[in-house]
Amino acid sequence: MGEPLFDRVALIGIGLIGSSLARALKARGLAGHVAVSSRTRETLERAAELKLGDSYHQDAGEAVRGADFVVICAPVGAFAAIAEQIGPHLEAGSILSDVGSVKQAVIRDVMPHLPEGVHFVPGHPVAGTEHSGPEAGFADLFRGRWCILTPSPAVALDAVAKVRAFWEGAGSKVDCMDARHHDKVLAITSHLPHMIAYTIVGTAADLEASDRAEVIKYSAGGFRDFTRIAASDPVMWRDIFLNNREAVLEALGRFTEDLTALQRAIRRGEAEALEDHFTRTRDIRRGVIDAKQD
Amino acid sequence: MGEPLFDRVALIGIGLIGSSLARALKARGLAGHVAVSSRTRETLERAAELKLGDSYHQDAGEAVRGADFVVICAPVGAFAAIAEQIGPHLEAGSILSDVGSVKQAVIRDVMPHLPEGVHFVPGHPVAGTEHSGPEAGFADLFRGRWCILTPSPAVALDAVAKVRAFWEGAGSKVDCMDARHHDKVLAITSHLPHMIAYTIVGTAADLEASDRAEVIKYSAGGFRDFTRIAASDPVMWRDIFLNNREAVLEALGRFTEDLTALQRAIRRGEAEALEDHFTRTRDIRRGVIDAKQD
Repeated sequence: MGEPLFDRVALIGIGLIGSSLARALKARGLAGHVAVSSRTRETLERAAELKLGDSYHQDAGEAVRGADFVVICAPVGAFAAIAEQIGPHLEAGSILSDVGSVKQAVIRDVMPHLPEGVHFVPGHPVAGTEHSGPEAGFADLFRGRWCILTPSPAVALDAVAKVRAFWEGAGSKVDCMDARHHDKVLAITSHLPHMIAYTIVGTAADLEASDRAEVIKYSAGGFRDFTRIAASDPVMWRDIFLNNREAVLEALGRFTEDLTALQRAIRRGEAEALEDHFTRTRDIRRGVIDAKQD
Repeated sequence: MGEPLFDRVALIGIGLIGSSLARALKARGLAGHVAVSSRTRETLERAAELKLGDSYHQDAGEAVRGADFVVICAPVGAFAAIAEQIGPHLEAGSILSDVGSVKQAVIRDVMPHLPEGVHFVPGHPVAGTEHSGPEAGFADLFRGRWCILTPSPAVALDAVAKVRAFWEGAGSKVDCMDARHHDKVLAITSHLPHMIAYTIVGTAADLEASDRAEVIKYSAGGFRDFTRIAASDPVMWRDIFLNNREAVLEALGRFTEDLTALQRAIRRGEAEALEDHFTRTRDIRRGVIDAKQD
């Protein structure tokens, strides 16, 4: 496998994404040493049982000491506190990245705590499952999936190149873009779909018990796909919605307008309008398949 | 395999469901003869190439002559015309069923055209994929899935028992319920999810071309699951929405209320309310998995 890309990688947080990253690091020989950190003792013990790292630290500051690459793999609502905690212990010349699903808020929360000489290259692997926790991860989670990096133009190019090489080593395709643009695109591709799925499953949860049982029983008709999405980690998603509020509300506004129009077409019995709409959406599906995202 | 359940089964329509049924009939030896009918010559030729039946008929009336079991496998908007066409040719003592996703409208459209002595046992296999046409079907589509029958209380019990045995032979679990109740439950489990998926994919389709390309590129974040649902047959779904209008609009009303409440929670930054909601939806997912519907 040759030289590892980094001597010591610190993973702050070891849930689905962090533990997948740990497994990918090991499988591909990307790091000399993997330091795993979680503030929850149980999670840390579980990670040790799974042999996900080389050292385990409840103190994130301790985990990052001597690390040339640090990746924050926690819900984005925890980023400010984590950055405050690890900031004083980050080595000059080291690279800091993360896997948060929103990027403007992450930059806002992390930047103030970084010492000079630390290269911050925010990242977002567009990959996941509805499962959470260190046992849910797997080395191939990122394979063939995009990882979006949103470094500021001021960041050293070789630091960005190294983070790119890291994600490519984990099997990802890598893109760079502006953080604001990232948040707008992901509001449509990811945050809005989760919002909708959480809503519709909640609507079903509010039915009377007998109706609810039947909804579950006959869920194969479409509903079960939404339940899968709506089973994703509640804290992670709470934080995403709160930290990408504007873009999510803007996407929701468009969605609601379109839903109202379709609703009216149903009420009025506008057969042609409905068929046209449903035919148009098939083309988007073809695009997704052509782009090898399914 | 013993005696086939029926001597001659006529399938009116040979798309995803009809062709899956044809394959299941052959694989399980449920019919002595399978008569396949489609009003589209191309589809019929494709069905013949795929050897889905024993005889092929562009004229549905011809297909049902001598059949002891007839199953309408067409979009529900076509049922009235089909019933009018086959009515005069149905044998006394034969059983008529269907696979339509709505049941009250099907009963309304079919009943007036039935001669006396024909047993009508409406059915709905809660199974499907986003693919359409005779090549999309497969014999195991119904395995482990529910098939809901909605016969009127006046229908002969042995006719219902035979239809039940037929679907069980195809691998389904079978339930009987009132047509009105069926339409209400399916509005939530199937029609509303499709409506929502068609909407959100349409919202993306309306973006500027460059944004649309990115939405497709990064669709792995949740959006791609919706594109799959929104790739379902447009005519079939147009007909479902138009023919289960009241129940769909009622379900949509509940959904919109709930969406508005979540939207407000995001706008106001109500972290606890969001987390509570997202935690509650996980339980529903557990129900779906326990019910072996995923």
